[in-house]
Amino acid sequence: MKTVGVAILGLGVVGSGTYTILRDHREFYRRTQDIDLSVECVLEINKQKALALGIEENRICGDIAEVISNPAVDIVVEVIGGVEPARSFVLAALHSGKTVVTSNKELFCKHWHELEAAARRTNAGLYFEASCVGGVPIIRTLIDGMQANVIHSLTGIINGTTNYILTRMAREGAGYAEVLKDAQALGYAEANPSADVDGYDAAYKLSILSSLAFHTKVPLENVYREGISHIALQDIAYGDELGYVLKLLAIGKFDGHKCIEARVHPAFVRKDHPLAAVNDSFNAVYLQGDSVGDIMLYGRGAGALPTGSAIVSDVIYAATHGEAKYSGFKNTEHAEAGIRFVTDFKSRYYVRFTAKDRAGVLAKVAGILAKYNISIAELVQKDGSSESVPIILVTHETTELSVRAAVEKIAALDTVEQVDSVIRVEG
Amino acid sequence: MKTVGVAILGLGVVGSGTYTILRDHREFYRRTQDIDLSVECVLEINKQKALALGIEENRICGDIAEVISNPAVDIVVEVIGGVEPARSFVLAALHSGKTVVTSNKELFCKHWHELEAAARRTNAGLYFEASCVGGVPIIRTLIDGMQANVIHSLTGIINGTTNYILTRMAREGAGYAEVLKDAQALGYAEANPSADVDGYDAAYKLSILSSLAFHTKVPLENVYREGISHIALQDIAYGDELGYVLKLLAIGKFDGHKCIEARVHPAFVRKDHPLAAVNDSFNAVYLQGDSVGDIMLYGRGAGALPTGSAIVSDVIYAATHGEAKYSGFKNTEHAEAGIRFVTDFKSRYYVRFTAKDRAGVLAKVAGILAKYNISIAELVQKDGSSESVPIILVTHETTELSVRAAVEKIAALDTVEQVDSVIRVEG
Repeated sequence: MKTVGVAILGLGVVGSGTYTILRDHREFYRRTQDIDLSVECVLEINKQKALALGIEENRICGDIAEVISNPAVDIVVEVIGGVEPARSFVLAALHSGKTVVTSNKELFCKHWHELEAAARRTNAGLYFEASCVGGVPIIRTLIDGMQANVIHSLTGIINGTTNYILTRMAREGAGYAEVLKDAQALGYAEANPSADVDGYDAAYKLSILSSLAFHTKVPLENVYREGISHIALQDIAYGDELGYVLKLLAIGKFDGHKCIEARVHPAFVRKDHPLAAVNDSFNAVYLQGDSVGDIMLYGRGAGALPTGSAIVSDVIYAATHGEAKYSGFKNTEHAEAGIRFVTDFKSRYYVRFTAKDRAGVLAKVAGILAKYNISIAELVQKDGSSESVPIILVTHETTELSVRAAVEKIAALDTVEQVDSVIRVEG
Repeated sequence: MKTVGVAILGLGVVGSGTYTILRDHREFYRRTQDIDLSVECVLEINKQKALALGIEENRICGDIAEVISNPAVDIVVEVIGGVEPARSFVLAALHSGKTVVTSNKELFCKHWHELEAAARRTNAGLYFEASCVGGVPIIRTLIDGMQANVIHSLTGIINGTTNYILTRMAREGAGYAEVLKDAQALGYAEANPSADVDGYDAAYKLSILSSLAFHTKVPLENVYREGISHIALQDIAYGDELGYVLKLLAIGKFDGHKCIEARVHPAFVRKDHPLAAVNDSFNAVYLQGDSVGDIMLYGRGAGALPTGSAIVSDVIYAATHGEAKYSGFKNTEHAEAGIRFVTDFKSRYYVRFTAKDRAGVLAKVAGILAKYNISIAELVQKDGSSESVPIILVTHETTELSVRAAVEKIAALDTVEQVDSVIRVEG
């Protein structure tokens, strides 16, 4: 039986989960995988944390150099998060020929090429299943399960915090600020929640997932991003009446030739779409391949054990497959390959505005929409005071720029108090 | 660039789909996978079928020996189905050192050990993703994505034909026989529908999937099997009123130590369970791992292109990964390993019976259930004539044998006309 030495960099939530899984399943992996996974050392400044997990003192390192120079370490698990010092540590491990398994989406999406180049130089493995959608094997699926397909679209609920917040808002009719505070108290959201609620976390993951799905690097700067902090409870309620659920979606599309779009924003989803039933902190990714048709993967997108499961699956994969396999993008130069990132994407739109006076306003609004070739699928006038009437319209498919221009014109009408919200309608 | 020669045995639905995908994506795989997949020959007696797909005449073989002796063939795709001659052809290919990719669930679940042993002897690859749940990469997930977990349960809707029939019965209130006839006309069901509607197909797949999930061969003869042909429309309607949807479920459970159960039967699923929304010919597998928690994979379980997608994904995997990897069951001797297959499984139960006379019957039924330690979760008395009253009860969790014994006693009551149906309630 092969013994494989593992080092864990950082004993935060995911690092502790990973250690626990490796410790408790050692005999199970011996029996089912024919490998002996031994945690040789952990890099953790807080010694007490490591000792509390039952790690022997002589296996606790305070310096990355100790880890790298330890000949018993074959695989380095990086679960520190953020760019530095994670990047330097990962590069050092790869330079020394050690395989790296990481959950670090920010590092990976920002420095993918650098990391992959370093891995190739020493023929070290580089695995990152845990960087996206926790324990759901979406990366393995894209690389090894759907690779026969031209993938045309990827639509995901890939941030658990925002899905938890939106689910509770919809279920309890509670406001954003209130639910966020609760989520922070429960540990579902950070003290500074921006990475989640402003869509950065989802954008990192979408950059990685759409790069794999479309076989060309989709850089973070080409991912459109909009968060959920401006979401009004009324829109969730009105959407519900119209048959929609509000989700923070991450959408990647590829026309099969040259055009890619990637965007993260709140969107309404029809209640009978499989993604509509993905609630609380669950995640899911819905994919459309040209041969396989529609596929969805669903599961826990975060947490110590689900993310640890993805890490350890990568560790086992690396330990039991002899060769390293990389993303192998050839199209690093997008201009050269003719790849174009679409920003004027198509969608349907939910627009809510407040009319000062209902007489005449609809004709004017219809005129503006017609001018921009936007056709109305639904129009609902809600009860209001005589001087303030909420009006909701849902458009057929149109383009982002048309809607923005039309909304500006609508907001400028004398008879319109304000345009309250514009929400895309997908799926 | 590596050129890899492929042979396709059989140009039925899946064979034709596989050929089409390989033909239409050849340039795509060159670009994205750095391999050139060339269909060197097809084995098909009906020459016209092959010619109609655009296959050159000199690549059409009538004899397996031609395929095996062709040095340009590296990978043999077996999509004939059934045990013979598929088994002999696959063994011949493996003996000659050629990698085999198959969609043949019956062959695989009945002759797994023989095939795997043959593959090991020549170090040939043996891949079978397409044998279960069409294009959904469930086998890759079990082998390479969830292998860090002790998997405790697997619950699947893994037969498209029965799910199509049950979905239409529920949606339209149409009877089983009528919908089956439609399904046959549409090509969703075979002229002899037994393999699907009697649960054989699902049992083959469950044998394979639970073997992989639980790391020990679960032989077909240990899979309990019950089909859908006896399902009455009333039970679907009554179930709906109680908040349930009827599905043909394939269930595998493992206690983590010694006890495995595997069963295919119709079952009620709560409407808010993710499996309840899996409709028409869609399939899904819901898994519970000790670290990852709940995961679901959803997609098309059959059809030329979805199943072809799984075949071609295996072909690419085999062509791009140097080494073959096998299931590697160590526990081929279950008795030795202490594995026990549970037949007296636990479930909740929906029981419908017709009372001749309502006076006194409930007390007697309650008495019988109490004797077998079965507690009632719900009891509904439906409208009927004064001499024939349908009564439905749903139990709390109990054991199969208790329910069978109690039902026998209930049926024998003077005041009971008959027990109409007993349906398990899961999920």
